[in-house]
Amino acid sequence: MATKVHVGMETEMNGNGRNGVPEMVKNNWKKRLLDFSGKMKRFTGCLWRTIWKAGREDPRRIIHAFKVGLCLTLVSLLYLIEPLFKSFGTSAIWAVMTVVVVLEFTAGATLCKGLNRGLGTVLAGSLAFLINYTATRSESVVRAVFIGAAVFLIGTAATYMRFFPYIKKNYDYGVVIFLLTFNLITVSSYRVENVLKIVHDRFYAISIGCAICLFMSLLVFPIWSGEDLHNSTVGKLEGLAKSIEACVNEYFNDPEIKENQDKSSEDPIYKGYKAVLDSKSIDETLALYASWEPRHSRHCYRFPWQQYVKVGAVLRQFGYTVVALHGCLQTEIQTPRSVRARFKDPCIRLAGEVTKALMELANNIRRRRHCSPEILSDHLHEALQDLDTAIKSQPRLFLGSKKNQTTSNMLALAAAHAARYKQDHGVSLASVKTDSSAFLEWKRKRVGREEAKENERKALRPQLSKIAITSLEFSEALPFAAFASLLVEIVARLDHVIEEVEELGRIACYKEFNPDDDDISVTCKRPPVDVTKNQLPSHAF
Amino acid sequence: MATKVHVGMETEMNGNGRNGVPEMVKNNWKKRLLDFSGKMKRFTGCLWRTIWKAGREDPRRIIHAFKVGLCLTLVSLLYLIEPLFKSFGTSAIWAVMTVVVVLEFTAGATLCKGLNRGLGTVLAGSLAFLINYTATRSESVVRAVFIGAAVFLIGTAATYMRFFPYIKKNYDYGVVIFLLTFNLITVSSYRVENVLKIVHDRFYAISIGCAICLFMSLLVFPIWSGEDLHNSTVGKLEGLAKSIEACVNEYFNDPEIKENQDKSSEDPIYKGYKAVLDSKSIDETLALYASWEPRHSRHCYRFPWQQYVKVGAVLRQFGYTVVALHGCLQTEIQTPRSVRARFKDPCIRLAGEVTKALMELANNIRRRRHCSPEILSDHLHEALQDLDTAIKSQPRLFLGSKKNQTTSNMLALAAAHAARYKQDHGVSLASVKTDSSAFLEWKRKRVGREEAKENERKALRPQLSKIAITSLEFSEALPFAAFASLLVEIVARLDHVIEEVEELGRIACYKEFNPDDDDISVTCKRPPVDVTKNQLPSHAF
Repeated sequence: MATKVHVGMETEMNGNGRNGVPEMVKNNWKKRLLDFSGKMKRFTGCLWRTIWKAGREDPRRIIHAFKVGLCLTLVSLLYLIEPLFKSFGTSAIWAVMTVVVVLEFTAGATLCKGLNRGLGTVLAGSLAFLINYTATRSESVVRAVFIGAAVFLIGTAATYMRFFPYIKKNYDYGVVIFLLTFNLITVSSYRVENVLKIVHDRFYAISIGCAICLFMSLLVFPIWSGEDLHNSTVGKLEGLAKSIEACVNEYFNDPEIKENQDKSSEDPIYKGYKAVLDSKSIDETLALYASWEPRHSRHCYRFPWQQYVKVGAVLRQFGYTVVALHGCLQTEIQTPRSVRARFKDPCIRLAGEVTKALMELANNIRRRRHCSPEILSDHLHEALQDLDTAIKSQPRLFLGSKKNQTTSNMLALAAAHAARYKQDHGVSLASVKTDSSAFLEWKRKRVGREEAKENERKALRPQLSKIAITSLEFSEALPFAAFASLLVEIVARLDHVIEEVEELGRIACYKEFNPDDDDISVTCKRPPVDVTKNQLPSHAF
Repeated sequence: MATKVHVGMETEMNGNGRNGVPEMVKNNWKKRLLDFSGKMKRFTGCLWRTIWKAGREDPRRIIHAFKVGLCLTLVSLLYLIEPLFKSFGTSAIWAVMTVVVVLEFTAGATLCKGLNRGLGTVLAGSLAFLINYTATRSESVVRAVFIGAAVFLIGTAATYMRFFPYIKKNYDYGVVIFLLTFNLITVSSYRVENVLKIVHDRFYAISIGCAICLFMSLLVFPIWSGEDLHNSTVGKLEGLAKSIEACVNEYFNDPEIKENQDKSSEDPIYKGYKAVLDSKSIDETLALYASWEPRHSRHCYRFPWQQYVKVGAVLRQFGYTVVALHGCLQTEIQTPRSVRARFKDPCIRLAGEVTKALMELANNIRRRRHCSPEILSDHLHEALQDLDTAIKSQPRLFLGSKKNQTTSNMLALAAAHAARYKQDHGVSLASVKTDSSAFLEWKRKRVGREEAKENERKALRPQLSKIAITSLEFSEALPFAAFASLLVEIVARLDHVIEEVEELGRIACYKEFNPDDDDISVTCKRPPVDVTKNQLPSHAF
């Protein structure tokens, strides 16, 4: 924008110089001004939306921002109030630094960083003091060489240590602080007489900074990592449940209905399991921070955060099966709708039961209570049996495509469907093509680019479509068999999930299941918070 | 250990006090000393192994550590050498800080942080100067209030901004630096007369620090994020290829052979695809850093790192299908070995072709050249056809279990197999049980714990095993159908992978495929470096 205004000014100056086109220039100016104000309006609107969205997604962000502002103001008083400044002097600046880099979003993260910082500072201070004490009796040049060598060795060793898995996982931040403090003290000690005084002042200033941070994060509207971990586990269970439901519905519904749904929003199936797939690192970080948090519930002496990580791992395994199920919707060979329709009811029923069980698990974890003994109800059992019966009642389906008449009909049906699908979705989705149309398309795509190289690469694409054709010759029931098998597999994995959740309930001393609780439904349910978005990268010194 | 020594000292003091057991105390001491020295030895051995392993996994870590040491020593010279100290004074400490927090493992990361740091410092310096200029004419108390209010407002606003997705992704570090510098300058300006001088000195010191870092990371043994991203893509392709091969082999081989393999090392199937599944965040970080790196190859003006992220995404999708394939090995219902044996050859052949194609893709990316036009060879096509023929030739298989005679035989076989499997693997792996044995086991497991609560939860487990039984009543060929369908699906997804890799080759100006190149095989291949372990969390100030 700045460039454009500048260009506008240049134009005006040119106009004045030449005389005769001032009216045009004036119009030009007006147009640019309007253009600029329009852009500004759009920018302001966009900014407001961003600000509003960030706060609405998780109101705790606003609280956190105010807490940081308040802490900084408090710590600034060390400088601004005369008596305080007299006792601390310029060391107070270290308290300001500490607040900026230690105060994190959750209490656990703040505690973890505060301790690392304290440990690093104390170790570095001691070592620097020792080195200074050893070097202090030598003459100036020898001392400088000694200090330089110490800086090099300690710097190299400490950096190398950061690659050890154990150090990296638990004390990486501490090592960085150690390195920083050690260098600052050692180097500045060369020019300053009283190193002990530096160390002493700095230590006090940092302690005050840490104390303010801890007070703020633990006592003023505390935000707990453990709470986030708990809620994200609930959210993942619910997301998986929704995914399975949407997946099965899409598999058996008409493509027209699906089209309408697609346009309205993001693919609900993907949205459901997305959070589960990439949850590993976020779960582990949250559990690490949560393990630092003091007990803040009446129910349990020490919360088993590692068990939440285990539940997360089982859910990821479960999620991969859901992804495979989703894959059946996008596969190259599609079972004809007419065939699918025969299995619609048992499949939808089975998926409904799995969804119900997952939802109940989510509900139980949310309320911190044990699972109901009926979580795997007879309904699930019956649904499995129904599906079994339905598959057994259609033995012809799994016969392969021996009967050419039927096969070619099915082929035509599938090809027609694929063509329509392709038309609607563009090229990105894989689809079944006939050999000639694929070849034509391949040619069309290539025409524009690199005519010379075309010939040698041309051999490639037709082979791809040949594969697609070959696939079609498989029994059309094969992909449905995969779908059904994956559904049964999901039921089997549900067992593992229930096992881990039960174990969680046992270790975390959840309260007993009480069927009467169900009457008091949770009405004040907030929309789930996406914890991944709150994990600010911890830059810190 | 410290506690134990302490305890020992206490014991000795007690012993001296009472007289009469000095001999025993002496022995006790000796034993403890031996114990302690043994522990020390073990600890030293473990430490050496860790040090050695970290260096052997990736020798660049050693280089990086030495580079950090050297930089710190260089920057310390600002303090240690008299003429340099005279011109910089105590501001030189800022150069030390800059080196500790800006110098990262790869060149791209260092550049990214250096720029963020520079930007943050300049913006904060300007704003602080402006505020100081406004406040400087008021009286002392008003000025203090003004500064306090500014610190609060800017602190709150900047912290809140860190939650905006765009800022968080690109400039989070810059915002933290901004906040820090702004606070330090604003607050200290209250007690210092010449703020401009502070800003000026600090700016120079930070520039020198940044310059040293950039020199070291760009010119002395540079480590490129782009190179890491490139190599990790190659590694992922190879890992997937190995996974598929191992998976199919395990599916068709005797369990005895599998047993022997399992014990020797980690599951090779899981090891192969593990890196692919959790690669999202690491890929994105590497691509972000790589996009900062200057061109360091003759071939291409600007490397398309975002395309590597796309390839990574397609590989993850591919990986999920491999996970599902792996799931077929661990599923509750197992197709009997005799049935599987009939499809062994075509399946192994098909998997072999897929493996070959993946390996060739990996090789091509490694050498930065286009794919051979024969990458999807006729062999793959033939293998697909063979599998199709094999499935069609066994129509009885997919008939479901109508014929009770066969079914019960198969049931017995599967149950026997499952029992042996279970015996070998313990409870963790899901397995097929008969109703009564499951109930007995369930009882045995529960006996020890919480007798009182047992009754109400007892209803749960028998239902689980009931499900396992129900599953068995499905056609045994169903899981094999899923396996075959997933294999075909893998071939289809291979198409997407090839498409993205081809696109990568086109944008990145890879060299043309030349069949003669294959004769010069890459013999000096290093074992793949696990890039995830080099990503030090970027603590920085």
